[in-house]
Amino acid sequence: MFYLIGLGLFDEKDITVRGLEIVKNATRVYLESYTSILMVDKERLEAFYGRKVILADRDMVETASDEILSHASTSDVALLVVGDPFGATTHHDILLRARALNIPTDVVHNASIMNAIGACGLQLYSFGQAVSIPFWTDTWKPDSWLGRIQENVGLGLHTLVLLDIKVKEQSEEDLARGRKIFQPPRYMTPAVALSQILSALAHRIHTLVLALSRVGTPTQSIRAGTLAQLATLPEDAFGPPLHSLVIVGSRVHPMEIEFASKWAIDGDWLHVARDVYAVEIESE
Amino acid sequence: MFYLIGLGLFDEKDITVRGLEIVKNATRVYLESYTSILMVDKERLEAFYGRKVILADRDMVETASDEILSHASTSDVALLVVGDPFGATTHHDILLRARALNIPTDVVHNASIMNAIGACGLQLYSFGQAVSIPFWTDTWKPDSWLGRIQENVGLGLHTLVLLDIKVKEQSEEDLARGRKIFQPPRYMTPAVALSQILSALAHRIHTLVLALSRVGTPTQSIRAGTLAQLATLPEDAFGPPLHSLVIVGSRVHPMEIEFASKWAIDGDWLHVARDVYAVEIESE
Repeated sequence: MFYLIGLGLFDEKDITVRGLEIVKNATRVYLESYTSILMVDKERLEAFYGRKVILADRDMVETASDEILSHASTSDVALLVVGDPFGATTHHDILLRARALNIPTDVVHNASIMNAIGACGLQLYSFGQAVSIPFWTDTWKPDSWLGRIQENVGLGLHTLVLLDIKVKEQSEEDLARGRKIFQPPRYMTPAVALSQILSALAHRIHTLVLALSRVGTPTQSIRAGTLAQLATLPEDAFGPPLHSLVIVGSRVHPMEIEFASKWAIDGDWLHVARDVYAVEIESE
Repeated sequence: MFYLIGLGLFDEKDITVRGLEIVKNATRVYLESYTSILMVDKERLEAFYGRKVILADRDMVETASDEILSHASTSDVALLVVGDPFGATTHHDILLRARALNIPTDVVHNASIMNAIGACGLQLYSFGQAVSIPFWTDTWKPDSWLGRIQENVGLGLHTLVLLDIKVKEQSEEDLARGRKIFQPPRYMTPAVALSQILSALAHRIHTLVLALSRVGTPTQSIRAGTLAQLATLPEDAFGPPLHSLVIVGSRVHPMEIEFASKWAIDGDWLHVARDVYAVEIESE
């Protein structure tokens, strides 16, 4: 059996009891290590599981998935995935390959940022499509995500904005020379993301925005303010990764504003909610 | 401390290790019992946790939340919630009350249908706003959810459709007379939901739809077909609750179609994907 097991958002204890039982009984345990990061290292997972954990980088999951799956045809193999197996990054491809090889599969779900974002007080029902902001380079500035934000804004819906992560990337030179030397991981900061958003929504500086850092961890932190306010905070104001942003849509409900006001930088949160979003604020 | 703990989708083993530790150490453990159902009964949870579990119905969470929270000011109280605490049904209200009482709170996330829906093979990024279909009565046929589906359709996005649940509802007569007699739980079937959708999208009978039943449980079942096909299946074709539907948007990717073709009722799934959605199908 091939198991895809979600690890949740923070550390070794965020796995479900069901997932842990499977891991403890599996013949081989892989940890997908390139689309996201868990906040703990492999050794801590191994100690907690009592099992050896094999890091599966992009190469392995994409090119050696047949090797992973070949073991699954005769024994139980678990691939651990940060968040939920079908969260921001999906793992449908390896399930399709397993299906083609007639290997039975099972999935153990867990929290992902796609639902844990509700921690900021906004209703999941009022979110439109989620977007991912990629790092821009001097020569490559993809902006399809901007159109998607505009679509949500047009409907008055909130937008969950996920920030780019570069893990185990090779430099262009190392890639060209076939050298397996990896750059240190890079995580887009809210400052970078906000400046990219601001470049497109310059006429909407009074848009309300939430910056969420390390959701589901003991150091979770949320800041609420206008696009202009958050974009001018110092780069280190948000602390270490992971970060995500929420752009508040015009259909926002007074209770959502009230809940998030706990994290407001200053009174502008309520002022803009009242004057720009026309939210009925009970009292200030 | 007041803990809101997500239980995930199926049974007592879907709690996270972190959540289980909190439950085992809490002074009082409540189970929210009106917005969703866990597939196991209270006694099984109690046996697994080694703790007494107090059922908290709608009355209790809405009117007796102060009683729940009063214990939390001096000891650890856990309120267990099926899915994620901020999933389809949010629990921001009781957190706001705790905040007003200066009671510290913590949240343990888990899977909810809002992210586990990825199991059907569609990318979460390509979903627009989720909608809930309420039971229609002879005199009350709310249809704001239809407008929201149309908004998603207009953008080519998928729609997650959640079906109404009535747990611990009183009849109008019992309510009028103040009698605490509850109707048996009612779960909207896909057949009812599909007929309500069809009444509004009659000109779009070639819309692709997925019906997901008991997601995240061992009896999970998925059916894929056109709106007209699924709407004419017999009412018992989907088995017991819980159910949800996905309306496939025009931006659908060939790999999404391929992944879900496993559950297709017949060849119409691929034909409509190719001819109506203009998806490039590699081979049939």
